[in-house]
Amino acid sequence: MHENKYPLVDAARDARFITIRSLRTPEGRSRTGLYLIEGIRHVAQAVEHHAPIHSVFYEPSILSNRFGQKLARRLRRSGVSGTRLSPQLYRQLTLASEPQGIGAIVRQHWTRLADVRVARDSLWLGVESIDSPGNLGTIIRTAEATGVGGIFIVGDNADPWAPAAVRASMGSLFSQQFVRCSIREFADWAKSCGVVVVGSSPTGLLDYRDLRCRWPAALLVGSERQGLSEHLIEVSDFMVRIPMRGRCDSLNVAVAAGVLLRSVGDEQFPSHHVRVACVTSDNASNFISNS
Amino acid sequence: MHENKYPLVDAARDARFITIRSLRTPEGRSRTGLYLIEGIRHVAQAVEHHAPIHSVFYEPSILSNRFGQKLARRLRRSGVSGTRLSPQLYRQLTLASEPQGIGAIVRQHWTRLADVRVARDSLWLGVESIDSPGNLGTIIRTAEATGVGGIFIVGDNADPWAPAAVRASMGSLFSQQFVRCSIREFADWAKSCGVVVVGSSPTGLLDYRDLRCRWPAALLVGSERQGLSEHLIEVSDFMVRIPMRGRCDSLNVAVAAGVLLRSVGDEQFPSHHVRVACVTSDNASNFISNS
Repeated sequence: MHENKYPLVDAARDARFITIRSLRTPEGRSRTGLYLIEGIRHVAQAVEHHAPIHSVFYEPSILSNRFGQKLARRLRRSGVSGTRLSPQLYRQLTLASEPQGIGAIVRQHWTRLADVRVARDSLWLGVESIDSPGNLGTIIRTAEATGVGGIFIVGDNADPWAPAAVRASMGSLFSQQFVRCSIREFADWAKSCGVVVVGSSPTGLLDYRDLRCRWPAALLVGSERQGLSEHLIEVSDFMVRIPMRGRCDSLNVAVAAGVLLRSVGDEQFPSHHVRVACVTSDNASNFISNS
Repeated sequence: MHENKYPLVDAARDARFITIRSLRTPEGRSRTGLYLIEGIRHVAQAVEHHAPIHSVFYEPSILSNRFGQKLARRLRRSGVSGTRLSPQLYRQLTLASEPQGIGAIVRQHWTRLADVRVARDSLWLGVESIDSPGNLGTIIRTAEATGVGGIFIVGDNADPWAPAAVRASMGSLFSQQFVRCSIREFADWAKSCGVVVVGSSPTGLLDYRDLRCRWPAALLVGSERQGLSEHLIEVSDFMVRIPMRGRCDSLNVAVAAGVLLRSVGDEQFPSHHVRVACVTSDNASNFISNS
């Protein structure tokens, strides 16, 4: 590999290194609109999904994997800018337990609320204040696997571009549509597009297995500790719960989101059963009294 | 609080401190049969669930919470042995991002295979080689919330007593029954007790939504990277998959376990539907051909 084609950066005070490192912090990501990805698999997925790669960085002595070397070469040849980091700087930067010697800076892709197109049979996800970026990334991965149309990041307390979220998403965030908006903007969007809002809470009145709602629909999940805010509960047409057994009072938020996304998604894409799925939010009370 | 009642440990070479610290490693836990818990909530849950607390440790200047101080006092008065750690040693030990100044050493509780009692309508979980202790702990939490009878740790590659597993289990592991066994022992147990074994894999032939199996049943989940081993697949009466959409080829293992446990568990405890749940493994082929 012609590692001399990318300039070497070996001083911690080098502006290029400082920029890369700053992307580990919320401020750095917010200021630049960029984020970090690490590892051969993630960089390859970013290329495959045509993610807007800003630049690449690598450390030749660690990047021993043939495929990884080929990937770096391909990126350089296609005109992507990049830097070669000294072993010491790379070690300072990496968050991987087994560093692979390559990473990239990618532009965050946000969809404007006005540009969201709502198909009649689409399922959406809204997240509010997820504390753990690992949980958020896992939720993004599940959302992709469930075929959601896009993810609303409601408020400022969840960052899909945090390193742990990127890692846990396993590449799903490259193809996912993200919309950042306020509660009010979300409520207006749902109303104007005729989207049924399904909130979730351990104290929701409706057993999630009894939910039959029309489409399009959006599932809302709140933070690990506080759940959904009062305002988002008010916005919800249904409030569903996952019934608990044993001494647990709740599930992990990513597990709960998975169970609910699969269940709500199955209403649209059943395996080979025919189900009745045409109840509007107007008859919500029927179901609440049944649960 | 009479903090002088517990002896002060302030030297890193003190045997008591070395023992506590060793419980952060698999070797230390395996050698002693003990494990570490940290934080007021976990210690309180251990007390509540009558977990076999071996000893308690705390650091008075960090333990500012009233309830936490009361808890430490209560433990001391009830004759639980303990140590007071110097601030420096406590900081060396803690894995918490916001340390609360209290923790405990607890005895691991394993159930012998011969002592497992299988109720006719019980659901069991078997895990094999879960790489991430956080995922394992989340699975334990979900298992408790789904009312499983107990968890089989098949093989030596998953440790429910690892600090990250304990943390993610949110106290669920105190009341859970754990059985460590080999694949052969698990297979013999399932056969002799008439337990239907439901394996899971992204390439399973049967859509999990089409599974109708008789009880008792055991769900098997494998590692994040490799899934179930060939031998456990052979042991399984059914192999179910969660169908994927988008570009994902799999879900996070804790999310997958959650979706499957809820779904299999719902066969036993439906919300208000009546379902047919009496298919034996003999007609597995019917369902596989349907999927």
